[in-house]
Amino acid sequence: MITLADPLEHAHSCFGARVAVIDGECSITYAEFAERCARLAAGLTALGVQRGDRVALLSANGHRYMEAYFGLPAAGMVLVPLNTRLAPTELAHIVEHSGARVLITDRPAESLAGLVRHVIMIADDYERLIEESPPQPLAVELSPTDVAALYYTGGTTGLPKGVMLTHGNLIANAFNKIIACSLDGTDVFLGAPAMFHVAGIAPLTGLAWLGGRTVTVPMFDPALCLDVIALHGVTIFLPVPTMLAALVAEQRRQPRDVSSLRLLGHAGSAIAVELIRQAHEVFPDTELAQFYGATETSSVVTRLRHEEATLGTALAGSCGQPAVGVAIRTIRPDGQECDVGEVGEVIVRSNAVTIGYWNDAAATAAALRDGWYHTGDLGYLDDSRYLFVVDRAKDMIVSGGENVYSVEVEDALYRHAAVAEAAVFGVPDEKWGEAVHAIVVPHPGMSVTQEELRAHCRELIAGYKVPKAIDVSSEPLPKSGPGKILKRVLRDRFLNG
Amino acid sequence: MITLADPLEHAHSCFGARVAVIDGECSITYAEFAERCARLAAGLTALGVQRGDRVALLSANGHRYMEAYFGLPAAGMVLVPLNTRLAPTELAHIVEHSGARVLITDRPAESLAGLVRHVIMIADDYERLIEESPPQPLAVELSPTDVAALYYTGGTTGLPKGVMLTHGNLIANAFNKIIACSLDGTDVFLGAPAMFHVAGIAPLTGLAWLGGRTVTVPMFDPALCLDVIALHGVTIFLPVPTMLAALVAEQRRQPRDVSSLRLLGHAGSAIAVELIRQAHEVFPDTELAQFYGATETSSVVTRLRHEEATLGTALAGSCGQPAVGVAIRTIRPDGQECDVGEVGEVIVRSNAVTIGYWNDAAATAAALRDGWYHTGDLGYLDDSRYLFVVDRAKDMIVSGGENVYSVEVEDALYRHAAVAEAAVFGVPDEKWGEAVHAIVVPHPGMSVTQEELRAHCRELIAGYKVPKAIDVSSEPLPKSGPGKILKRVLRDRFLNG
Repeated sequence: MITLADPLEHAHSCFGARVAVIDGECSITYAEFAERCARLAAGLTALGVQRGDRVALLSANGHRYMEAYFGLPAAGMVLVPLNTRLAPTELAHIVEHSGARVLITDRPAESLAGLVRHVIMIADDYERLIEESPPQPLAVELSPTDVAALYYTGGTTGLPKGVMLTHGNLIANAFNKIIACSLDGTDVFLGAPAMFHVAGIAPLTGLAWLGGRTVTVPMFDPALCLDVIALHGVTIFLPVPTMLAALVAEQRRQPRDVSSLRLLGHAGSAIAVELIRQAHEVFPDTELAQFYGATETSSVVTRLRHEEATLGTALAGSCGQPAVGVAIRTIRPDGQECDVGEVGEVIVRSNAVTIGYWNDAAATAAALRDGWYHTGDLGYLDDSRYLFVVDRAKDMIVSGGENVYSVEVEDALYRHAAVAEAAVFGVPDEKWGEAVHAIVVPHPGMSVTQEELRAHCRELIAGYKVPKAIDVSSEPLPKSGPGKILKRVLRDRFLNG
Repeated sequence: MITLADPLEHAHSCFGARVAVIDGECSITYAEFAERCARLAAGLTALGVQRGDRVALLSANGHRYMEAYFGLPAAGMVLVPLNTRLAPTELAHIVEHSGARVLITDRPAESLAGLVRHVIMIADDYERLIEESPPQPLAVELSPTDVAALYYTGGTTGLPKGVMLTHGNLIANAFNKIIACSLDGTDVFLGAPAMFHVAGIAPLTGLAWLGGRTVTVPMFDPALCLDVIALHGVTIFLPVPTMLAALVAEQRRQPRDVSSLRLLGHAGSAIAVELIRQAHEVFPDTELAQFYGATETSSVVTRLRHEEATLGTALAGSCGQPAVGVAIRTIRPDGQECDVGEVGEVIVRSNAVTIGYWNDAAATAAALRDGWYHTGDLGYLDDSRYLFVVDRAKDMIVSGGENVYSVEVEDALYRHAAVAEAAVFGVPDEKWGEAVHAIVVPHPGMSVTQEELRAHCRELIAGYKVPKAIDVSSEPLPKSGPGKILKRVLRDRFLNG
């Protein structure tokens, strides 16, 4: 019965006078925030957007992102957040695939304008819409099984898939986040990680229910974040590891008063134990925590609270035990459960797990079996169910907190006329966690340079997916019996120089 | 997807070696507890109990109560907890109405034995069943919409109704309790309030997920409870107000070390502000909290945390704001929402609200409308949605934490040959919060004494429902136009001497 309209209505009626969000010079109470959400929904309704219609959003973080996150689903519309780092062709695919009727954006997006009926520019149209639209009653006949948002994520097939998250999923996510992070009404959340990822915005559902506050920054910058933490008494920040490393370096360079910060939780990719040690040294009074999850699970799957206490123990490197309300298993290729310590695929069951991929029954059937989401990640559980993730079965690279599917990059490389064989894999990188690395074999008699290939890729895929380095080799790549390129062999060769 | 089998499985696999429950001399780890649950389910299955079958439980608190609470529903069976204070005829009605096939009990219950196929005596049969039954895999094809338990509660029609709580309800309840009480894995819960009430046992669902501990006592005794708090480092106790008053008096008489106690939350009936003041004086380092709920809502509807801070403020006497995940409204008789400060019926919506009454479609339709449970309680909301309950529309008396429906008591009185008119209402009572009071008018030419009437009632209804005092009057009772007895007039007359 409970939908995203509920925390919004709750925050409005219980904490109307409290500040919900601080966005630069702009400070908005929960009463104002709820009214803006209702006006936004009314404005879109007047433009012809109906219940179930998709609305794409391409924007930096800010209070308007939060308004769209709550207001559109609360009125029955489906939000489609777009990753601002994607290439125009990638964005166009998502807008077309989702069938979005409207695009809300803070930047010129000519290549998308022809795909939708209306483009709402945040700089002017958005505020006019809000000003001119009398608030619309929300939550009219909403059901927890209604889709609230489509979060597109890369996939092994190369094209991004739209992860359907229902109201029920995002409400389960709220309970999950409140418990996993011990949120309460005094918390001040730093809205710095990208809000186009579900991990960057979903914590705000629980926070609204508790009457907590969010301080947004348009995008991550370590100096700005530390200034904001000190200025606004931020209590909780959930950066990706790359951000955490930058934050540690900046706080070393110029220490700010971070005494308000009670929890620094990171997720998004494997983290070096060394970074945890450094973070604990630089933020000695702050609890460190590691979380593991995926867009498809929407919420925290496992959590390792007080990670600083695991340094030097057998738990260092684990991403923790299953969160409350989440069941996990590791399974063998035949579906049997693994023994303690045995590596297998991690599968997840919880009320926050997606109902499937938008208009993609085959991918849905492959990922969701008997109520369990198959993550594609490989890991093992110890005898107290601490999870250790050891590899990505999906051939995925996590670079700067963004997932890069090797196949997407390989597809782009193969589209160059000179490329006969291409293999893409992740290599350790101090700044990005992992860097995208490629090895290419040209067709006989043809030649190509690293620079040409990188320029070619930039036309087709997001900058963060473009290989940082491309080795051009004249030898055929090593292959398995059935002819599959043995990437692990290539990767090992690379790592051993 | 998540059912009561999940927290049990989670506690087993994550915290197997931790102590789950201390019951007198007996200390049981989560691994042992989960195995005992699975053996209990297997033993009942061997007796022919199938999925969906009801199993009645008539017992004092203890680890076996907790095993039945988790183990039976986790195996698909439906638990029917029986209020140990009820009269034999009342118990027989519930056992018959529920269609229970098995009774588990710690006391002689001859009058019930003929109604079920098997009686399992806790003193001997129960342990033999556990010893002889190899553990049965739990949660086979369970659904969150499956009924987990029937909690019988009195009603305005006189006969108790079976509140159906599903797995989904009790899981929502777990999230609700974790958040409302800030539970974590270090908590030690005092299992003193009766576990046959959902409020007495449901907190253990969340506690299992977190790996917390329960210490049980067979029944409430203030001296024993204080000893247990000091001995086992109890952190949280959720007594009814009558218990709280006794606890305050006992701690005054003989102070124990209660430094471990972080939360004393009370619920179940209106509480005198004076008692809060005294409790704060006697437990100065413990947070006081008030909760409001009903069997039908299963979980906490509103909560007032740090109630001690409301003393002397406008919030004193409120039962707090809606809990996370719960929506409340106050409505007029025509269904319109009340204004701020206007008294109306309190209605509740949450994922923890019952799906209805067992085999009672009419009562279900009356109580559940458009997803809202109509509590029958009258109250008002202030401008920040703090709830103030002012009266019980259902003509209910709350005495010592037990609900007494006036109509049940009136029915019993009317069954005496000499009674022409009877009116039952609650009057303030220092020990019980409210005491049951009756006024009776005999038939012309007949006479009856208070003692005769009380003895008559004791045959028919539970001792706590029998009026503490009965005025026998020769004057007809005051009535409204349509002939309804004006109980409020009688009550006011009584209070004004």
